[in-house]
Amino acid sequence: MNLILLFEDDFIAPDTVRLSDRRFAHADSVLKAAVGDELRVGLCNGKTGTATVTAKTEGAVEMRVALEHEPLASLPLTIICALPRPPTFVKVIECAVAMGVKKFVFIQTARVEKSYWQSPVLLAEKLRYHVMRALEQAGDTVFPDIVFKKRFKPFVEDELSALSAGTRKLAAHPGAGSRECPRGLNAPVTLVIGPEGGLIPHEVESLVKAGFETVTFGKRILRVEHAVPVLLSRLF
Amino acid sequence: MNLILLFEDDFIAPDTVRLSDRRFAHADSVLKAAVGDELRVGLCNGKTGTATVTAKTEGAVEMRVALEHEPLASLPLTIICALPRPPTFVKVIECAVAMGVKKFVFIQTARVEKSYWQSPVLLAEKLRYHVMRALEQAGDTVFPDIVFKKRFKPFVEDELSALSAGTRKLAAHPGAGSRECPRGLNAPVTLVIGPEGGLIPHEVESLVKAGFETVTFGKRILRVEHAVPVLLSRLF
Repeated sequence: MNLILLFEDDFIAPDTVRLSDRRFAHADSVLKAAVGDELRVGLCNGKTGTATVTAKTEGAVEMRVALEHEPLASLPLTIICALPRPPTFVKVIECAVAMGVKKFVFIQTARVEKSYWQSPVLLAEKLRYHVMRALEQAGDTVFPDIVFKKRFKPFVEDELSALSAGTRKLAAHPGAGSRECPRGLNAPVTLVIGPEGGLIPHEVESLVKAGFETVTFGKRILRVEHAVPVLLSRLF
Repeated sequence: MNLILLFEDDFIAPDTVRLSDRRFAHADSVLKAAVGDELRVGLCNGKTGTATVTAKTEGAVEMRVALEHEPLASLPLTIICALPRPPTFVKVIECAVAMGVKKFVFIQTARVEKSYWQSPVLLAEKLRYHVMRALEQAGDTVFPDIVFKKRFKPFVEDELSALSAGTRKLAAHPGAGSRECPRGLNAPVTLVIGPEGGLIPHEVESLVKAGFETVTFGKRILRVEHAVPVLLSRLF
């Protein structure tokens, strides 16, 4: 935890927060915070700054907060990802959120096992936990937008055009017709990432019809949780 | 498993292998291989190619092997990494091996917990399992060299110079004196990656004295298992 996330209801006065949950536990047992110490904090979806410990008891800490810095820059990227199996889903979220992705669409494709949609990791509360961990790790405060689309065809035919308007449209897809993934783009990107078994030809055609170009990034076949940081690092 | 790794003692004839372990289980239950099917294989530290299933029983599969392709290109990189906690160690190995790293040195630094050195994941057999998984994922056959150095000072003072000779020497270290990590190098690199808590000033000084330049890759603080693919993707 490189930043403690604060929420409106933590405030007991305009510039003072009181924490008694896992954030207190972290400040107490990991950071060994004592009265007078300064900790790095950030307001949910807002500025970051420092908090000075003003009081500490056995179960809570009070801090005077000074929020002065804008949140970290985010990546101008929408990730559209075939829903991975649950442990991979968590890894993708934690990595991409830490790297600054603010918009995710998880979709059904032919090679996504339907059972993945039943996983408890997709529940709002669990998802929020993993997002918070990633923001706290990176030092960010801005929560991403994460949506789920259980039907490929209506999503691609009815929603993808508006969602990807004005962006460079890329689909990671190892194949004969794919070109090398571009590097160092300074422009908004919509990036489609297929499932472990790949997109099927019909899905690739739908995406190409929607204006996407297929790209590869080498001969090695990487797991989705590794492909994501590799692609993000390459694109931006 | 995108490639089945073969070893000399799998061969029952000059061009025929017989598999009855987890590779058979994979060919049988995941790939549903039947007589006549072709599977992608590679010889440990050697060429890759195809294997045609010639016989299959309840507990074994026999395949005629044709090895014709050179193994995938590897990265001209030595990673020198502060020993991470065991789950992170496994993630770093699996990701970096899949990406083509062939030389690892895991070292002790001031902020590495000594208990990490007792972990069973460092045992040769466990390590080999994770390396194989990564090679099979990537489609590679060449095993990396992984060494452990439990003492920072003698390693840096007596061995690092020879180890890093003729390479670009970089140490990932967020700090005021660090420059942006270079991109797209086409040259051998030795890359030092510190522990989660960072290198201490004295360690940074020793590395600078040994010819290393400190580099950063942005304001976001990433976990070691995410920093590795980001750095590799950026450097090569």
